[in-house]
Amino acid sequence: MHVKTRQHRLRVRYQETDQMGVVYHANYLNWMEIGRTEWIRAEGLPYRRLEERGLLLPVVDLQVSYRHPARYDDIVEVHTRVTGYSRVKLEFEYEIWRVDGAEESGEERSVLLLTGLTRHIWMNASWKPCRIDKEAPELYAILVESGGRDI
Amino acid sequence: MHVKTRQHRLRVRYQETDQMGVVYHANYLNWMEIGRTEWIRAEGLPYRRLEERGLLLPVVDLQVSYRHPARYDDIVEVHTRVTGYSRVKLEFEYEIWRVDGAEESGEERSVLLLTGLTRHIWMNASWKPCRIDKEAPELYAILVESGGRDI
Amino acid sequence: MHVKTRQHRLRVRYQETDQMGVVYHANYLNWMEIGRTEWIRAEGLPYRRLEERGLLLPVVDLQVSYRHPARYDDIVEVHTRVTGYSRVKLEFEYEIWRVDGAEESGEERSVLLLTGLTRHIWMNASWKPCRIDKEAPELYAILVESGGRDI
Amino acid sequence: MHVKTRQHRLRVRYQETDQMGVVYHANYLNWMEIGRTEWIRAEGLPYRRLEERGLLLPVVDLQVSYRHPARYDDIVEVHTRVTGYSRVKLEFEYEIWRVDGAEESGEERSVLLLTGLTRHIWMNASWKPCRIDKEAPELYAILVESGGRDI
Repeated sequence: MHVKTRQHRLRVRYQETDQMGVVYHANYLNWMEIGRTEWIRAEGLPYRRLEERGLLLPVVDLQVSYRHPARYDDIVEVHTRVTGYSRVKLEFEYEIWRVDGAEESGEERSVLLLTGLTRHIWMNASWKPCRIDKEAPELYAILVESGGRDI
Repeated sequence: MHVKTRQHRLRVRYQETDQMGVVYHANYLNWMEIGRTEWIRAEGLPYRRLEERGLLLPVVDLQVSYRHPARYDDIVEVHTRVTGYSRVKLEFEYEIWRVDGAEESGEERSVLLLTGLTRHIWMNASWKPCRIDKEAPELYAILVESGGRDI
Repeated sequence: MHVKTRQHRLRVRYQETDQMGVVYHANYLNWMEIGRTEWIRAEGLPYRRLEERGLLLPVVDLQVSYRHPARYDDIVEVHTRVTGYSRVKLEFEYEIWRVDGAEESGEERSVLLLTGLTRHIWMNASWKPCRIDKEAPELYAILVESGGRDI
Repeated sequence: MHVKTRQHRLRVRYQETDQMGVVYHANYLNWMEIGRTEWIRAEGLPYRRLEERGLLLPVVDLQVSYRHPARYDDIVEVHTRVTGYSRVKLEFEYEIWRVDGAEESGEERSVLLLTGLTRHIWMNASWKPCRIDKEAPELYAILVESGGRDI
């Protein structure tokens, strides 16, 4: 099955840099979060609505491999896909690319900055694991069609 | 009446710097927040307990004058005092000093980095203003003795 | 003279919230920074280019009045204008508005969340004050036409 | 060989929480950074001094397994050890524990919140890999005695 990958662009903020002159390594995690938020939004279901219904999706595992740093004012593109799901778990993979030439007339060139993975467990408002196929069946149907494997 | 000033020291984190090589200007606000938290704790009342009782203390006004920047690994000292209070409002003033020589054997020298002020309104869990003399009379008694003026 | 105001929209990030359920007060300063960056970019001069030439623009004074909080996933709009300038100083004022209904078909409604002001001094790479009319005359010409008053 | 583990305590800041009511997952990475900074300081060599000599230690790989969240005002303890080193690479492992009862008279109890690992490459100021045994032999000698394996 085809794995649906979503792209989302953002511009690097001054606040995201550190004195090494590049983006502080923890800040890429915010972009990965934006990537999965926008993946779900693109499927028609804002993550905000899920939280309003008492569903939480905390990160339980995290892996990142950094290849090149991003710098202030760069345009970066977060590529996000669901690589695994079950009734209680969810797994995303990410690539973050720097996009050069986006603002000039010529062609764009992309450089891969990092790859990452996050694993999550669905929780209810009392921080107890819950079954997403029962709590949000319309979201579970989206995950079944996401191209991710059953985990 | 004497105004009670409390001091709290902390070390500058790498994450708090930006590519200018100094602490990003918004991060001093976190230190001011730590200053007022520690002021209240020193009076015997952790702010955490207030929030557990449904009291919130959002910032409604903020002023900062920056004189010198802090840098990575500096030791800084936040001086905090209550300069005004009423049944619904609270005002703190801050000085943030860099402390040099704290780790070596000799004497310490301090440099004033910034002065700041925050004004707050007491709110309940529904984000409605509330009267602290009713909701937390033991805290109101502390404020009456703080040396701050009635505002 | 007409004062040029620039608008820039952004979406509130999960990371920007705190346990009060709203955006942490210091994070609005990042948005004000983005506002002034985009003001300068709209005039044809990315701030990144200024820093590459060794010019820095640290904040020396800051004032914010908070009226309503922003929440996760809100669309907010930063309105930025130059209200004062000289050969060595620069002053911006900001309004941050929440924009409701931006994603639905109907009309948009805006709510003013805060007003703010920052004052800056132009510095060279050695952190010494410098004259922007000499270091970057094309930027000084832009400021003369900005509608800001001479300070 | 015995592996030297260093402990460092810190208190959770309000700014580190998010609207889930717990510490935002990316913020634990700051604490891991503080852990390795304090590990090196305890060996007599502030990381600040290394950067002043033009040495950088960017993160190239990162893994975190989250078990329990930290909350505002918790006391947490970062346990850090060097698990691998070579002339060009460095690897740390971390445990972050919540320490309960630290402020009351009774005994302390600890709960493991997460385990993590970071891998680093030594770089010079031009962002080229460099050999730490040549650039900072006194640090290399410390690493040889750290108990970490050769990688």
